[in-house]
Amino acid sequence: MGPFVRDFENGSKDEKDLLGGKGANLAEMTRLGIPVPPGFTITTEACRQFLATATVPDGLWDEVDEHVAALEARTGRRLGDPTDPLLVSVRSGAKFSMPGMMETVLDIGLGDASVEGLARQTGNPRFAWDSYRRLLQMYGKTVLDLDGDRFEDAIDAAKRAKGVTADVDLDADDLRALVATFQQVIEEGSGTPFPQDPHAQLRGAIQAVFGSWNSDRAILYRRRERIPADLGTAVNVQVMAFGNRGAGSGSGVAFTRDPATGAPGVYGDYLEDAQGEDVVAGIRNTLTLADLERIDKTSYDELLAIMSRLEGHYRDMCDIEFTIEQGRLWMLQTRVGKRTAQAAFRIAVDLLDEGVISEEEALLRVTGDQLAQLMFPHFDPDGARALVARGMSASPGAAVGVAVFDSDAAVRVAAEGTPVILVRRETTPDDLHGMVAAAGILTSRGGKTSHAAVVARGMGRTCVCGAETLEVDTRAGQFSTPDGTVVREGDTLSIDGSTGEVFLGEVAVRPSPVVRYFEGTMSVDEGGPLVAAVDRLMGVADKHRRMQVRANADNAADAARARRFGAEGIGLCRTEHMFLGERRELVERLILAEGEEERQVVFDELLPLQRADFVEIFEAMDGLPVTVRLLDPPLHEFLPDFTELSVKVAVAEATGREHDTDSLLLLAVHRLHEENPMLGLRGVRLGIAIPGLFEMQSQAILEAAAIVAERGGHARPEIMVPLVGAVEELSTIRAEIDDAAHRAREKHAVHLEHLVGTMIELPRAALTAGDIAQAADFFSFGTNDLTQTTWGFSRDDVESSFFSRYMEAGILGVSPFETIDRQGVGRLVRIGTDEGRRTKPGLKVGVCGEHGGDPESVHYFEERGLDYVSCSPFRVPVARLEAGRAVVASG
Amino acid sequence: MGPFVRDFENGSKDEKDLLGGKGANLAEMTRLGIPVPPGFTITTEACRQFLATATVPDGLWDEVDEHVAALEARTGRRLGDPTDPLLVSVRSGAKFSMPGMMETVLDIGLGDASVEGLARQTGNPRFAWDSYRRLLQMYGKTVLDLDGDRFEDAIDAAKRAKGVTADVDLDADDLRALVATFQQVIEEGSGTPFPQDPHAQLRGAIQAVFGSWNSDRAILYRRRERIPADLGTAVNVQVMAFGNRGAGSGSGVAFTRDPATGAPGVYGDYLEDAQGEDVVAGIRNTLTLADLERIDKTSYDELLAIMSRLEGHYRDMCDIEFTIEQGRLWMLQTRVGKRTAQAAFRIAVDLLDEGVISEEEALLRVTGDQLAQLMFPHFDPDGARALVARGMSASPGAAVGVAVFDSDAAVRVAAEGTPVILVRRETTPDDLHGMVAAAGILTSRGGKTSHAAVVARGMGRTCVCGAETLEVDTRAGQFSTPDGTVVREGDTLSIDGSTGEVFLGEVAVRPSPVVRYFEGTMSVDEGGPLVAAVDRLMGVADKHRRMQVRANADNAADAARARRFGAEGIGLCRTEHMFLGERRELVERLILAEGEEERQVVFDELLPLQRADFVEIFEAMDGLPVTVRLLDPPLHEFLPDFTELSVKVAVAEATGREHDTDSLLLLAVHRLHEENPMLGLRGVRLGIAIPGLFEMQSQAILEAAAIVAERGGHARPEIMVPLVGAVEELSTIRAEIDDAAHRAREKHAVHLEHLVGTMIELPRAALTAGDIAQAADFFSFGTNDLTQTTWGFSRDDVESSFFSRYMEAGILGVSPFETIDRQGVGRLVRIGTDEGRRTKPGLKVGVCGEHGGDPESVHYFEERGLDYVSCSPFRVPVARLEAGRAVVASG
Repeated sequence: MGPFVRDFENGSKDEKDLLGGKGANLAEMTRLGIPVPPGFTITTEACRQFLATATVPDGLWDEVDEHVAALEARTGRRLGDPTDPLLVSVRSGAKFSMPGMMETVLDIGLGDASVEGLARQTGNPRFAWDSYRRLLQMYGKTVLDLDGDRFEDAIDAAKRAKGVTADVDLDADDLRALVATFQQVIEEGSGTPFPQDPHAQLRGAIQAVFGSWNSDRAILYRRRERIPADLGTAVNVQVMAFGNRGAGSGSGVAFTRDPATGAPGVYGDYLEDAQGEDVVAGIRNTLTLADLERIDKTSYDELLAIMSRLEGHYRDMCDIEFTIEQGRLWMLQTRVGKRTAQAAFRIAVDLLDEGVISEEEALLRVTGDQLAQLMFPHFDPDGARALVARGMSASPGAAVGVAVFDSDAAVRVAAEGTPVILVRRETTPDDLHGMVAAAGILTSRGGKTSHAAVVARGMGRTCVCGAETLEVDTRAGQFSTPDGTVVREGDTLSIDGSTGEVFLGEVAVRPSPVVRYFEGTMSVDEGGPLVAAVDRLMGVADKHRRMQVRANADNAADAARARRFGAEGIGLCRTEHMFLGERRELVERLILAEGEEERQVVFDELLPLQRADFVEIFEAMDGLPVTVRLLDPPLHEFLPDFTELSVKVAVAEATGREHDTDSLLLLAVHRLHEENPMLGLRGVRLGIAIPGLFEMQSQAILEAAAIVAERGGHARPEIMVPLVGAVEELSTIRAEIDDAAHRAREKHAVHLEHLVGTMIELPRAALTAGDIAQAADFFSFGTNDLTQTTWGFSRDDVESSFFSRYMEAGILGVSPFETIDRQGVGRLVRIGTDEGRRTKPGLKVGVCGEHGGDPESVHYFEERGLDYVSCSPFRVPVARLEAGRAVVASG
Repeated sequence: MGPFVRDFENGSKDEKDLLGGKGANLAEMTRLGIPVPPGFTITTEACRQFLATATVPDGLWDEVDEHVAALEARTGRRLGDPTDPLLVSVRSGAKFSMPGMMETVLDIGLGDASVEGLARQTGNPRFAWDSYRRLLQMYGKTVLDLDGDRFEDAIDAAKRAKGVTADVDLDADDLRALVATFQQVIEEGSGTPFPQDPHAQLRGAIQAVFGSWNSDRAILYRRRERIPADLGTAVNVQVMAFGNRGAGSGSGVAFTRDPATGAPGVYGDYLEDAQGEDVVAGIRNTLTLADLERIDKTSYDELLAIMSRLEGHYRDMCDIEFTIEQGRLWMLQTRVGKRTAQAAFRIAVDLLDEGVISEEEALLRVTGDQLAQLMFPHFDPDGARALVARGMSASPGAAVGVAVFDSDAAVRVAAEGTPVILVRRETTPDDLHGMVAAAGILTSRGGKTSHAAVVARGMGRTCVCGAETLEVDTRAGQFSTPDGTVVREGDTLSIDGSTGEVFLGEVAVRPSPVVRYFEGTMSVDEGGPLVAAVDRLMGVADKHRRMQVRANADNAADAARARRFGAEGIGLCRTEHMFLGERRELVERLILAEGEEERQVVFDELLPLQRADFVEIFEAMDGLPVTVRLLDPPLHEFLPDFTELSVKVAVAEATGREHDTDSLLLLAVHRLHEENPMLGLRGVRLGIAIPGLFEMQSQAILEAAAIVAERGGHARPEIMVPLVGAVEELSTIRAEIDDAAHRAREKHAVHLEHLVGTMIELPRAALTAGDIAQAADFFSFGTNDLTQTTWGFSRDDVESSFFSRYMEAGILGVSPFETIDRQGVGRLVRIGTDEGRRTKPGLKVGVCGEHGGDPESVHYFEERGLDYVSCSPFRVPVARLEAGRAVVASG
């Protein structure tokens, strides 16, 4: 066995590093004795050497020649034989699938002489000349890098000359003429004739596949998908099997279970007299596997036996490609099949029930992202649906609204209470206000990293992007579809962000049965196989889970909901809303107060109101911990916007209609105005700058806890100080809190537990966590703010301005606001956790940023040994599932 | 020797930890055989145990009693002896001097019986009764914590009754009556009579000194001065020496050299028939040491011999306190003397020349802060000066302007071109605009951490704060002084921020001779001893210095100046100004440009203008490296302010006078508006979002370098990319720069070196420095921005809003924007440096934040092994001095 080539007999599915995905699975099937056209794989190692040195490694061609000779011996045919030529395909196959990125050349081995032999041998001259035509075209484009249009133009000319429109209307003679034209195109374009030597063809094709690893589009794809750049691709050389040799031949794709629903039973498409490419291209209507049973029972039975065997062997649902050449079945590919979220749950639980996989394996077969998808509302599958376009599923959800073509109008219409679908060719930062106002966003250009897609995902808006068949005319306020449908401003649209579908009119939206199950409004029995599967796997996840899952909830209603979703406490209860509404007037008085006494009057009014709020929350979470964050936002957020108020006052003055209150207020707003409020007077700084504020809040919290205790309940308050950067800040505030606790205990004479902790949301807090832990009972990583300061990104500003550009350029693979940035922010989480616990071994550490509900981030927090994650109530099941998966995955 | 007490015979100046500063030096003098009144020191260890347990450590009183007995044996007198009593003083003495913070009790040992003995023994009843009166007063206040006013009121009443005004007019009988009154005050206030037992007095005094370590003011002082809270104080018990025993007695303070100028020769004050306290209090005019020579040649000669011996022994200028009791000289204290900046330089060089200290020691005797003080302009010492007040030296410099009493007026007056001194009782964040407009700031309240002081230092404004004798009436627009002088708005004031002096009228300002020397406009010979000393020590510093010192300079004039100040390159050349002035119109076109072509037109116009700028800078720095930072600030900084423009447009619309240009501009400003511009679209993000921008700048830089090379010069451009957070950003831009370099080399056919590096100014950049180093030839820590993001502080916003509060509360000891925060920001500097060099061992690492010119920070950068610091041209000498000192200090 040489160093660079392995025939399919020597390899297994576990060698994807060396053989690529396709090669490894072909070897696996060969090893299992499943009929696979013979062939061999050139390893990724050969590719890596080629890429590093820009030359083919010494000895590679000798090895290839040896293996070709072996193929010739086995098949009894020879490459280039003028009577009965051996034809081979050359296909790329990297470790990770990179669909459409890399190259393929089929029908290698044909030449001016052997094409005649193939025609005679098969008795099908049209098939032979069409194969030759295909080889020339693929070779010209792929190996010689010629412009593909020149070949397409020649085909069009031939059809025009004959007065036909379809390729199939060209007969053998037409194709023979086309071959001559193609050879001319190649000679003119490349300077040399098409190589008649099949070995030269083969070498050219192999080098072309190697080189395609570093094509611009492949590099960009890898950068976006975070696939390492130095893996290289394997190359599979395989004897051609022809599904297009007339009746008794055909090609198909199949799944061992339904990839849409996960229901048991095979599922597939079959096309007679066709190559695999034709099935996928959808040029003719395909048949079902049931049809195949009717047409060719022998092959059908053999196929089903193989599929059953593969599923058992891979212990998972598989997809396969197969070809029947004159009644003989050949398997061309297999792999663990892609599936919908619904199917993933169903299949995992079915395989578990069938005893094929363990409970732990079943858990690893589903993901939090899939569960999240199942929780979005979706369009009623039975409702009337008029599909007008299909784009990319950029941000999930189901949105219905009237079409609006510019952002100002979107804001206006939405303000009237009408839901809006904002339709744009593409969005720019100027559209931000329109995107905020819209229920959904639809664009005709741009991919999953376009501005629209990135911003919509960031905001949680439903979005379909890149619906390229739409002709959007924003000036005229309309778009048209290829079939002439015109949608005008005000027409109703329904867009499905999970499938990329765009429907005309209103499609009924159904709440997710999975959510109804979590909510308790649908039982497992009522929910069918999907809900049963979710129920089963949630149980498995909870059993293995080490981390607690809490929810971010600011009021009793959200807290109760979170509890139904399985939250084991509140990880973040913001108190901002307790200063809003009718209490805003009190905040204005607080800001305008002169001296401690005036401020105290305001505090005395706020105290009972906030105490009542906390009583409700503690009662909703009776017995579970509730982490309350003291006031965080800068005070001017409670006042009117600086620019708006400036304009109002100036215009009033200019037109002689001054209001004293506005002018007074403007003074205060001006005083509190900050260039960078995120980095200004907020969080613990407020607590220190406004003596009494945090004390009042702490008093309200602790008296509420005492009241709940008096009523026989059990409140477990954990008071959290935001934006701490130095232990001195925390210890200063901690003294106030402990005083308030002491007073509450004395006043109510009940037993009260309370903890005092801090957010770790500034780099300095993480870097000095060893000191800060001295004054803290717990840490909660505020990963949103920590990401903002670690990267120097203001989320509001950057997501809409340059994040899409960063993603397109591959500088960011995923937004660090969605998934924790392990190297930067994650390193601070590690430092903060480890050094905090070094000071105080029992320190409770959690996370309450949005990352607490992000699957990949949850795994990171499990690795770091955090005690809990906290996320929005809706993400609690996702976090539970992933926290369980993380334990199993790391075990 | 017991564990808690050491007599003066057993100790040395190197035991300050255990004996405190005063005790260690008393022991040292005793050991040297210098006449010191005998006594002993109770160690800091005893104090620490007392503070920890709130009781006197077991055995302490026994030890004290033993040592007192030894004193009695040596002096032949006994504590409380009714005929010839021994009297002792009890003084605190911590490791670090805490002036005025801690307690002292004198004359311990007097009682109703022994006072009569003292009167007889000394033949001076008035002296005896006055001593007793003093003991009662100090004991009442210090040990019994009684209100001092009650004693002062009694003295006033006695004087009123007798019809006199001065204490000295009270005779022995009056004082005897006062003693009776004081005893009554004590018994009423404390509930028990004054203890007649001298041992009880002694124990009470010792405990009072221990306890004073944790007085509120001492705690606050330590927190501000960053003195550890757990050191504790020592207590010195010493036989009283009386300088107030009539003719032949007296007390004095003296320096072994002039502490103001450093000139050789003793310097001091002497007061006949007085205690040390009286000399310091300045109640009578003091005599000089020359007078003492005349009065008591023997004591004078002995004193000079001792001073000479002390200076030789301490190898530095010393200050001393002495008392002559009836012709016998006693030394009461010595220590290395405080001195002015000028004296520090002169003394260090003189001692070096005298062979007393080495070159390295001389360098350690001066500081960068002292050098910086010598570089400020100062008031002409010979000019007319009318001192009206004295406050705290809050921010150095000499400022002259008209008094203005509110901030709006300050802005208005300054806008007319008249320099302003803003006078306020205290400043608040509302005064920020006035402080920016003013040449100097004067307040009557608040200390060195008050709002005025903190903000003025941050802005580099001259400030005198806490001039408490001024009655400021902002409403009336005037202030008055105790002598009735009234200064009104518009009157001219001169304030000296280095001395805290406030003068009426204009005092002539003189440039610093040290600056003139650095500038080259004054030779060493012309400059006198001070300039000679600076010159000498700069040479020593440069000889030992390891780090390079560069300057931050944006144009040729600043660059040339920096070079004269000793800069070895430009560490930060900002390019913002190259987009300002007449080029602002081009930037507006750039911002409004649609598409790449329109932008390129603007770039083509900007290129030659910027190239010419760079040619000038490179020529000024011929042969030295110039680090050019590509454009950093957000684009909207080149446009009008959002709020102002909104107001302008709205008012114009409301009054029917719309301007289309303004409205168009407002759209652009609105589009570019950011909530937190510091964390928005700036730095490398601009370079990526606006293709061509950084390429144009790089082209201008490299073509300029080529032009300089063609003219025979040697430009060494180092191109620096700002705000990088991920290596992908840097490598993207690096490719553009390297392209531009390639083109410049081809176009000009000259040899060109260039480096490409990055600012490390985001936490993530430091945390991923190992990756970023792959694409960087150098790192430059931007410690201003790094401090902002690490702490989450927007400097503009927080320094004026809550920094002063943080400093008063001791949460911050010093602003992290002035001195590097070692634990937080400094840790990132360490991580970034070490991990960058792990990837690329030769990586050049510097710092270009303001910390590059801060003495303490320079030491930190030396510890971290940085290659250079870069600071403002004016700070270059300071950085050179400190970089040299840092090497010597760490060696």
